[in-house]
Amino acid sequence: MGNVIIGQSGGPTAVINSSLAGAIRAAKDHGIKKVYGMHHGIEGFLNDDVIDLDIYFDDLYELSLLKRTPSAFLGSCRYKLPEIEGNEDTYEKMFLLMEKYDIEYFLYIGGNDSMDTIKQLSDYAAMHGKDQKFIGIPKTIDNDLPVTDHTPGYGSASKFIATTMKEIIRDNESFGASEPKLCVVEIMGRNAGWLTASSMLADDPDCNGPDLIYLPEVAFDPEAFIRRVHDLCLIKKSIVIAISEGIQLADGTLVCELGNDATFVDAFGHRQLSGAGKVLTNMIAEQIGYKTRTIEFSILQRCATHLASRTDIDEAYNVGYVGCEAAMKGETGKMITIEVLKRTPYVADYGIHDIHDIANVEKKVPLEWITNDGTYVSQEFREYAHPLVLGSLSKHTAGGVPKHLVL
Amino acid sequence: MGNVIIGQSGGPTAVINSSLAGAIRAAKDHGIKKVYGMHHGIEGFLNDDVIDLDIYFDDLYELSLLKRTPSAFLGSCRYKLPEIEGNEDTYEKMFLLMEKYDIEYFLYIGGNDSMDTIKQLSDYAAMHGKDQKFIGIPKTIDNDLPVTDHTPGYGSASKFIATTMKEIIRDNESFGASEPKLCVVEIMGRNAGWLTASSMLADDPDCNGPDLIYLPEVAFDPEAFIRRVHDLCLIKKSIVIAISEGIQLADGTLVCELGNDATFVDAFGHRQLSGAGKVLTNMIAEQIGYKTRTIEFSILQRCATHLASRTDIDEAYNVGYVGCEAAMKGETGKMITIEVLKRTPYVADYGIHDIHDIANVEKKVPLEWITNDGTYVSQEFREYAHPLVLGSLSKHTAGGVPKHLVL
Repeated sequence: MGNVIIGQSGGPTAVINSSLAGAIRAAKDHGIKKVYGMHHGIEGFLNDDVIDLDIYFDDLYELSLLKRTPSAFLGSCRYKLPEIEGNEDTYEKMFLLMEKYDIEYFLYIGGNDSMDTIKQLSDYAAMHGKDQKFIGIPKTIDNDLPVTDHTPGYGSASKFIATTMKEIIRDNESFGASEPKLCVVEIMGRNAGWLTASSMLADDPDCNGPDLIYLPEVAFDPEAFIRRVHDLCLIKKSIVIAISEGIQLADGTLVCELGNDATFVDAFGHRQLSGAGKVLTNMIAEQIGYKTRTIEFSILQRCATHLASRTDIDEAYNVGYVGCEAAMKGETGKMITIEVLKRTPYVADYGIHDIHDIANVEKKVPLEWITNDGTYVSQEFREYAHPLVLGSLSKHTAGGVPKHLVL
Repeated sequence: MGNVIIGQSGGPTAVINSSLAGAIRAAKDHGIKKVYGMHHGIEGFLNDDVIDLDIYFDDLYELSLLKRTPSAFLGSCRYKLPEIEGNEDTYEKMFLLMEKYDIEYFLYIGGNDSMDTIKQLSDYAAMHGKDQKFIGIPKTIDNDLPVTDHTPGYGSASKFIATTMKEIIRDNESFGASEPKLCVVEIMGRNAGWLTASSMLADDPDCNGPDLIYLPEVAFDPEAFIRRVHDLCLIKKSIVIAISEGIQLADGTLVCELGNDATFVDAFGHRQLSGAGKVLTNMIAEQIGYKTRTIEFSILQRCATHLASRTDIDEAYNVGYVGCEAAMKGETGKMITIEVLKRTPYVADYGIHDIHDIANVEKKVPLEWITNDGTYVSQEFREYAHPLVLGSLSKHTAGGVPKHLVL
């Protein structure tokens, strides 16, 4: 039996370290000799930047603290493996490094792009008769991985969004004695509106939730938007609007591109979007004339481990644990999935699925869950998302501020 | 013995409702017949918009939920009373309204501008032989009220800033395998840097805290800033910079005015600032060339009751309680203060002080607490601020999201 190596990749989440904790624990429970970490994912691994994790986890306290630490403990990367054909050198180098550390089990915690890494490596291993096992552990606040019911990281981001949205609505409605007060909240999500949809969870017996919710799944119509806002201003003093950063016009133009801010393109060719909220705020100022605030949740929605969901922490831990076990049972070229057996009371189990159906495929919010001419989401969405934000974990706090585990 | 009326004014805080809870509880403990609330502060009161609070608080559960509710439960306002001279009508109207509701004790929870309201009303009462008592209850996340050691609201905002700053630093350092990654975090504070200084509380055994901290108390030098950042980029892969929204050049020009965003002026003539972070981010992009993210905490720092400090909640409650008692003992034209008897272990008591020394006076961060050529704050600041972020209160959560009390 060889060793295990674990990598973390892509945008961090509040619970990506819980998956790492689960995988480490499974390796230890099953008598794996050495547990290694890739420093900054596959990019670091290619430079032989490997961490001996045994020195960090000699008792359970460190694992429990790791579950409470935001961001990627091992360091992350946004590195896309090249196509195999014509780049065999890169792959040979990687497999030589695996031999150097006697690695039999290769676990990669990530989203869409990271699952592509698992696909390429397992394809190469199959082509060249290599014995290493490659398993993907799902992770993304965007919740856009197919096959799995949802992805670890999404529940905690949703809990942050719902909680903070409710606090913002409360704050926004505290004024409003004279003219309407508006607030546009910009939430992450390039092509899939899962995160923005979660803002509807602020709709509680003691809160009406946001007034309008715009997802990238439906074309954004500026004229209809202004009409809606105008009508709301006639009947309400406090108006809060949730939008995805990636909302776009019918012709595919991103709303954020209507502003002045330059957009940045990352290594995967994804544009880093921001500014859609500001564009809508300016639109309201020019065409309706009321003061409007723009709030961008920015990376707070993916790193607010202080507000992580217990369901999410547990599931993230479990997919890590189950992923390590699956590799040890001989599975390869697959990703661990979450299967929800019952929504109420919530019962979930874990499955495994061929990576070829998953890598590079995006799952969007079903159109039938988007209501009110594309300005809200349905109760079916609530039933889906609600169990994922339940519960919390006690904090390890020192001096009023949560403690983290660091390399 | 007459009745009590309570108002909330100015920007909300995470604990302004704890002060309301304390004042209500004191009134009930001391047998006051009726407790009224001003709907949207003095502005609502002038329109006879008065709330009977007895119907909301018939058991202790509601008071405990009120302590966990962000924003101003009664509604807030930004309304400045006119000078007495030449505006006697307004004052006469107000005192007639007090007579209508048999109000003997007038409590106003607010910051600098709200204390001006207490000053004007108590001055008018003294001039015209009126018997009502007027007491100010301090509240502001800005911590800029004089005489009192600190203000309720500041500790919770500091706890949010320190916790979130630590999470941001963790997230920012997760990448950084190749070139430096920078992040500028813009924090509230027009003229006083108390909130921005709190970001140094992220400096823990497991975190180095922000790399640079800029307060409005010291003139901002763009050239020196770029030199500092440039030097940091030579030795670090992750750089996080905390700035006050109100930082300004030596000639008094606000840094945010160097950008394109229009500034909005409120009823008190205060400009609503934002954009300083974006200006510095653009400066770094143009002159150093590395990708830099801008994060604005915006109103999240004043409404994040889910992260409120226990010390702050308790002190906010207590100044409300003591304020009501002081009025009943015959005090008027004064504000309740917090007196810190010992920093470690923390021991605080409550005092009372003439409103004329307080209204319209701003307390800034002492220059001797600002270090490193104006780019950091000292251990003296830490000793001052640290006790204020300690502890937390159990949440009343339903469905994964905190419950609030609403009118």
